[in-house]
Amino acid sequence: MSQIRGRFNKSADKSVQEYTQSIDFDFRLGAVDILASIAHAKMLAKQGIISRKEMKQIVGGLESIAEEIEQDKFDFKPELEDIHMNIEARLIEKIGDVGRKLHTARSRNDQVATDMRLFLMGAILITISAIRELENAIIEIAGKHLNTVIPGYTHLQRAQPVLLAHHLLAYFEMLERDINRFWDCMDRTSILPLGSGALAGVAYQIDREFVAKELGFDEVSQNSIDAVSDRDFILEYEFAAALCMMHLSRLSEEVILWSSAEFDFIELDDAFTTGSSIMPQKKNPDVAELARGKTGRVYGNLVALLTTMKGLPLAYNRDMQEDKEGLFDSIGTLLSTLDVFTGMLKSLHVKTDKTESVAKQGYMLATDIADYLAKKGEPFRSAHEKTGKLVRYAIEKDKALNQLTIKEYQKFSSLFDKDVYNITVASSIAARDHIGGTAKSQVAKQIARAEEILKDYYAEESKG
Amino acid sequence: MSQIRGRFNKSADKSVQEYTQSIDFDFRLGAVDILASIAHAKMLAKQGIISRKEMKQIVGGLESIAEEIEQDKFDFKPELEDIHMNIEARLIEKIGDVGRKLHTARSRNDQVATDMRLFLMGAILITISAIRELENAIIEIAGKHLNTVIPGYTHLQRAQPVLLAHHLLAYFEMLERDINRFWDCMDRTSILPLGSGALAGVAYQIDREFVAKELGFDEVSQNSIDAVSDRDFILEYEFAAALCMMHLSRLSEEVILWSSAEFDFIELDDAFTTGSSIMPQKKNPDVAELARGKTGRVYGNLVALLTTMKGLPLAYNRDMQEDKEGLFDSIGTLLSTLDVFTGMLKSLHVKTDKTESVAKQGYMLATDIADYLAKKGEPFRSAHEKTGKLVRYAIEKDKALNQLTIKEYQKFSSLFDKDVYNITVASSIAARDHIGGTAKSQVAKQIARAEEILKDYYAEESKG
Amino acid sequence: MSQIRGRFNKSADKSVQEYTQSIDFDFRLGAVDILASIAHAKMLAKQGIISRKEMKQIVGGLESIAEEIEQDKFDFKPELEDIHMNIEARLIEKIGDVGRKLHTARSRNDQVATDMRLFLMGAILITISAIRELENAIIEIAGKHLNTVIPGYTHLQRAQPVLLAHHLLAYFEMLERDINRFWDCMDRTSILPLGSGALAGVAYQIDREFVAKELGFDEVSQNSIDAVSDRDFILEYEFAAALCMMHLSRLSEEVILWSSAEFDFIELDDAFTTGSSIMPQKKNPDVAELARGKTGRVYGNLVALLTTMKGLPLAYNRDMQEDKEGLFDSIGTLLSTLDVFTGMLKSLHVKTDKTESVAKQGYMLATDIADYLAKKGEPFRSAHEKTGKLVRYAIEKDKALNQLTIKEYQKFSSLFDKDVYNITVASSIAARDHIGGTAKSQVAKQIARAEEILKDYYAEESKG
Amino acid sequence: MSQIRGRFNKSADKSVQEYTQSIDFDFRLGAVDILASIAHAKMLAKQGIISRKEMKQIVGGLESIAEEIEQDKFDFKPELEDIHMNIEARLIEKIGDVGRKLHTARSRNDQVATDMRLFLMGAILITISAIRELENAIIEIAGKHLNTVIPGYTHLQRAQPVLLAHHLLAYFEMLERDINRFWDCMDRTSILPLGSGALAGVAYQIDREFVAKELGFDEVSQNSIDAVSDRDFILEYEFAAALCMMHLSRLSEEVILWSSAEFDFIELDDAFTTGSSIMPQKKNPDVAELARGKTGRVYGNLVALLTTMKGLPLAYNRDMQEDKEGLFDSIGTLLSTLDVFTGMLKSLHVKTDKTESVAKQGYMLATDIADYLAKKGEPFRSAHEKTGKLVRYAIEKDKALNQLTIKEYQKFSSLFDKDVYNITVASSIAARDHIGGTAKSQVAKQIARAEEILKDYYAEESKG
Repeated sequence: MSQIRGRFNKSADKSVQEYTQSIDFDFRLGAVDILASIAHAKMLAKQGIISRKEMKQIVGGLESIAEEIEQDKFDFKPELEDIHMNIEARLIEKIGDVGRKLHTARSRNDQVATDMRLFLMGAILITISAIRELENAIIEIAGKHLNTVIPGYTHLQRAQPVLLAHHLLAYFEMLERDINRFWDCMDRTSILPLGSGALAGVAYQIDREFVAKELGFDEVSQNSIDAVSDRDFILEYEFAAALCMMHLSRLSEEVILWSSAEFDFIELDDAFTTGSSIMPQKKNPDVAELARGKTGRVYGNLVALLTTMKGLPLAYNRDMQEDKEGLFDSIGTLLSTLDVFTGMLKSLHVKTDKTESVAKQGYMLATDIADYLAKKGEPFRSAHEKTGKLVRYAIEKDKALNQLTIKEYQKFSSLFDKDVYNITVASSIAARDHIGGTAKSQVAKQIARAEEILKDYYAEESKG
Repeated sequence: MSQIRGRFNKSADKSVQEYTQSIDFDFRLGAVDILASIAHAKMLAKQGIISRKEMKQIVGGLESIAEEIEQDKFDFKPELEDIHMNIEARLIEKIGDVGRKLHTARSRNDQVATDMRLFLMGAILITISAIRELENAIIEIAGKHLNTVIPGYTHLQRAQPVLLAHHLLAYFEMLERDINRFWDCMDRTSILPLGSGALAGVAYQIDREFVAKELGFDEVSQNSIDAVSDRDFILEYEFAAALCMMHLSRLSEEVILWSSAEFDFIELDDAFTTGSSIMPQKKNPDVAELARGKTGRVYGNLVALLTTMKGLPLAYNRDMQEDKEGLFDSIGTLLSTLDVFTGMLKSLHVKTDKTESVAKQGYMLATDIADYLAKKGEPFRSAHEKTGKLVRYAIEKDKALNQLTIKEYQKFSSLFDKDVYNITVASSIAARDHIGGTAKSQVAKQIARAEEILKDYYAEESKG
Repeated sequence: MSQIRGRFNKSADKSVQEYTQSIDFDFRLGAVDILASIAHAKMLAKQGIISRKEMKQIVGGLESIAEEIEQDKFDFKPELEDIHMNIEARLIEKIGDVGRKLHTARSRNDQVATDMRLFLMGAILITISAIRELENAIIEIAGKHLNTVIPGYTHLQRAQPVLLAHHLLAYFEMLERDINRFWDCMDRTSILPLGSGALAGVAYQIDREFVAKELGFDEVSQNSIDAVSDRDFILEYEFAAALCMMHLSRLSEEVILWSSAEFDFIELDDAFTTGSSIMPQKKNPDVAELARGKTGRVYGNLVALLTTMKGLPLAYNRDMQEDKEGLFDSIGTLLSTLDVFTGMLKSLHVKTDKTESVAKQGYMLATDIADYLAKKGEPFRSAHEKTGKLVRYAIEKDKALNQLTIKEYQKFSSLFDKDVYNITVASSIAARDHIGGTAKSQVAKQIARAEEILKDYYAEESKG
Repeated sequence: MSQIRGRFNKSADKSVQEYTQSIDFDFRLGAVDILASIAHAKMLAKQGIISRKEMKQIVGGLESIAEEIEQDKFDFKPELEDIHMNIEARLIEKIGDVGRKLHTARSRNDQVATDMRLFLMGAILITISAIRELENAIIEIAGKHLNTVIPGYTHLQRAQPVLLAHHLLAYFEMLERDINRFWDCMDRTSILPLGSGALAGVAYQIDREFVAKELGFDEVSQNSIDAVSDRDFILEYEFAAALCMMHLSRLSEEVILWSSAEFDFIELDDAFTTGSSIMPQKKNPDVAELARGKTGRVYGNLVALLTTMKGLPLAYNRDMQEDKEGLFDSIGTLLSTLDVFTGMLKSLHVKTDKTESVAKQGYMLATDIADYLAKKGEPFRSAHEKTGKLVRYAIEKDKALNQLTIKEYQKFSSLFDKDVYNITVASSIAARDHIGGTAKSQVAKQIARAEEILKDYYAEESKG
């Protein structure tokens, strides 16, 4: 408890400084803050607001500070409150009075908004790249399991046989949507606020498009008050991250179920479980459990910032400093989860004998029987009911459907003929031969399409 | 309490029926369910799965049910559980056995997913239209107040003078982002799941693109398991709605502040306040308060569905039935809030004398003084500090800045000259003459740009 | 969509009336509003503020309105906005001018706070009673399964054998905490706000203790401004409900798992599943799924009101009208969930042969082996490691532990002796013979304690 | 970005270790883990499971580790994953093989649950003590302002005059409820889980009551499966913290409003604002803003854990490791917020001249006029309406109520007489002379009661 009690001995000033400082977490913005300052200084020189020589001194100073930060030699001082003042103070220390000119035509409010956007633009790219790796892993396993049959579930009850590849590719679709959401978020992040000043704009002939171009922003913001008040882009990342974690929580749940003794569909690689030292047979799917659990914190970060922003009058309010820690945590959680998931999937072993044998049990072909009757002319709803009675009969007789005699079949409908025995797991799967269906040819098309998407992405990457 | 106690007397079957039924809320899907069924029937006929004649009977039956629903003559039966079974049962009642063929090659799972998407596509269009109306109202008032000055605030402290039009247009920017988010949501909603069956696809030669075209979907889904398991599109609407409500909560807060006796910047029209009958001078800004308060429920709906979806294994689980009520509530809340806001803004009266006089008080031109010094060569950070000392001096002397003598100015910097008296509220605003700045010409450009956006939208609307 | 589009044709006044009215949901407060008004009228008479005769007229009028409401004959008018004005208007209609005296010495603000507290006090009692019924069901099944062994799980991996009764009683403990939380909530709800007026108190010699006693409140509120601003009691109910739903979501998850073909531990009664008509063998555990899913909405309601209350200045703000719908929904959801759960548990069938046979598989007695060594002097951590090696050896040899020879045992520790074969599922369970352990005698004590608690409750109930 | 990109170069094992380790945050449990281990060792010796000598070695070793931790000399190793293994490994290092006996008759699952409870019991005491300090500050200012009048607000519109002391004491009531909630949470936290083993109990004759007594727990848990699965106590703390932050967010909002130029009711001490260096007159209420903003993160932490716990099957799952960081953050946030608030309130200056003059403006005595008529026999609802008309008349004539002639009064009711001029701010306040009312004598009683509560608390504290 002593670390908690410690706080009681602090002076008011000290408590408040600790309470209001942000350097403990916004130090992460160091690199982007310097990038933004360099672009700003260049613009000031271009517009004649500072001289070229002053600009060069400033840029040189900033670059050497960037190196200090990179090499962990920068001394962050809490009494300077935030990363921006830390860097400016160090700049003045290094290059003297000319350093005092850097803050011309800007304010802390537009500066911090610019830094957050620059930082997030980088984080979005890395996030997309990490999702792509997971997609890769999914396609890889799917490719291996184009012939592996598993039971498809609804209500966690076995419903219809499907290809394992088909099941896994459902997650590819989810991840594609995730990536699209992150790109949409990028569109609304890549807008330069610098030049908005404290809230009203600045009293200089600035060139905002120049700065935007230097820093890789697509646009400049259109309204200075909005530009310093807006945190939508952070909320969007947090929401996209929450959805992505939700998807991973579903996959986690399946990994946990499939690893249980009861399902026994897969075996995880040792690196991704923590065995009980005493029960070596017990491979706890800790990574999947933690991923499922961490969904909570990413949801929580979203709720936190939504709450913080509710009802704030324009323009900047100090409440908004709370945008950072949750974002950093959501980025870190999502990236590390994607990372371990990729490894876990790549290394897992599917017990195909088990899944196939299970896929044959039960009455999972009932729908196919109903379709059989419907195709012979029975209205589907009636075919459905008749099949229900047939299955109930089979259960009572403790027979599999293909163990029923043709006579027994015909008790339920005269439309039944010998070709009913042609209905098998294989035929059931093969019959679903349309876009999105589980037939092998269709699943192969899904894989080909997915590979194309990834190929395009990596081609683009290697260019850009 | 009696209505609560009532439940204890129900039989198990009755309790469960009430607990699991969805007709109490999914009746809203009636119209889209019929549209989707009509397209499905046409496809079945086109593919030869049912005959043309059967199709015509089915379509005729469905159209007459649509009318019954439209005219409030449809008798929803809870024992039929949901809207889909209610309509199918009524269809069979009307057209006999052929009605039993409608459900061929589909399942409740892909049917409900299709209905929800169709419904939401409509809701998104209406939402965007309602936001456009609010944008219209904002541009209208902004246009009237291109010369009205108000104090701009940071930390709810007066900071710098800005144009009221500029301040209001910040909300235009937020609403533009909202609209873009709703369009992005549309992209991921306008994907047809029909044909995914229960989870594996269907055993018929169906034509999913035909159905998609009939119903106005942009694409068909690529993976049947994902198609019946996915509720991302609903979560996206709920998130976009949450952000939009957050923006409105900020505007609400400002309307409430500005209506207070202390600010006294605006007067709301009587239609949008509830006066206390005893204190007729007291105009409670109830609409703005409720809008601010209702932000909570829209956040809550988002959290609810995020929670529900967490950790669900594929494919369909009954938990997912919980997607509907929250969505309907968020749509309804957002639409009614936008609606009353539009009316409230259009009818409010700005007390321009008051805002202008306030904008002149205090020391809101301090930044301009610092910029004055910086432009004369003082490094900005030093100019900043010197101005701070000057203002402190003025406060102690209880003088406005323009009441100081030039001698007094020069105590703080020899750079001060008579032209310092040229710094006024008007000059401060005029100086911020760059994209996004508060200078009148720039604000006029913002309005022109906004008007262009709306013109394009309405032109598109009237076409489409 | 037409019901959505409908709103566009409304006049501003009409829209605002619909937006601000609460009669659509606060009609539920009718009964308690009348109770509170009767007590208020009696107090006014007792204090000489109105005459006894006036009081009698008012009380008579209110009682007859109560009957109208009870019998569904009361005509709720939206234009009167809320339940309070509806009742007062009807009272004046019935008894004339004297009805106008009822609102003496009170305000809408303290009236609505009083109604909500009275309503909630009733709801808490009913909630506790519904939890007690579920506890009863749990004890009942636990009693039947004092000899049924199931595998206990950690990480959804089989870990150690336990009694099913012991497992189920874990939920009894959770529900006990829930009940205690509801009682704690009652303590903070049972405080009378009436007499607080709009916010400052009232200018009459009132007797608040008298009203409190009449209505069954334990205390009167101590600060009028707090009394009209406080919604903690509602948030507390919503939180207690959220925790209770969380507990039920865990039980739901287990019911779903146990009903799966893979676990196959239980069979639910048909009344609590919805079979697929086509796959009669498929009993979907819809009730458990919906209960798990509805956890989301109860969480959402909590988040909604927390959001609404954040940052509201004192005293009453219209935002607070948003306290009602979420509360009513959480009460209704929790009560109906408890209700169906009670029925579902009472009627479920445990497949004891299956659970027992599973409990014998695997190496779930490993911990007992380690304890065996530790008891013979091996430090526990080393015993743990040695047992790990032993189990790994057995797995490689594909032998159960009791199939190993004593020689094989002794390879891992010389402390092993023939008595190691005495370690069985039964001995493992019997050994855990301390408070809270899974030994049968201890579990029997848990049941006895639980029965005692319920007996006391029902004895208290039948008195009070 | 480099720190983000860094992760891509890690090996699978390394990534997983980082993903699953908890030592980065559970090091905070070091002190309580050692306390619990000492009690456990003593119990083992008392029961003859280890020898007295062994116990003494273990206890000595643990005590010296406690010192190492206290003095920041302990070397936490991530590869040992968590605090428990770190301490056990160090113990074995220090005292040899006997250290391996410590873990006899316990498991990581009951150990970590015990540690969390012990930690939280301490945190609750400190939280209550910090709330008491804030209460003290409130009583202190309230005592100084027993004669200061301010406008009471509803809907942020001036409604009725109240004493500032009365207004502030509303927060005392909120904080009292907070404290009661924390005590309730304590009741459900102070229950010893140790002895529950992994989930089934342990196979030793342990004495759980002895351990409970040693560690200051009130009870032992009754069901081992529940004991290792339960995180209700953490959720309860997080909820109580969320409500307390919600209360502080309301006070924050008021501090921010009152500090604005528009309200101008108070002046914050420089230590609690961050001035703009350039606008020294601008005192930004940063502490209050941050407190309001931090409400979000405490809500978020609650949502996070609620989400994590949803739908988890019994007993322990690794997801539950996510209980810690959110709790630590909520404790830290609440304590630091209470701390800075106490300082901020103690040092703020109330501009009583301003508040009093404002309290006299407007028509805040309208209710008193209506009461005046009601007391003379006019039914209150009619008195209310007549007063409304009177006030409207006064507004039109631009007169204060006490500037109206008696003739003018009598236009609205013949019941008006000269004594109507006796209605003043002072008389209005004095008239609300009942429990909870704003009359000075009543407010003085509130203060006396509050002081009594604090006196009792500190007396208890100094004893215990």
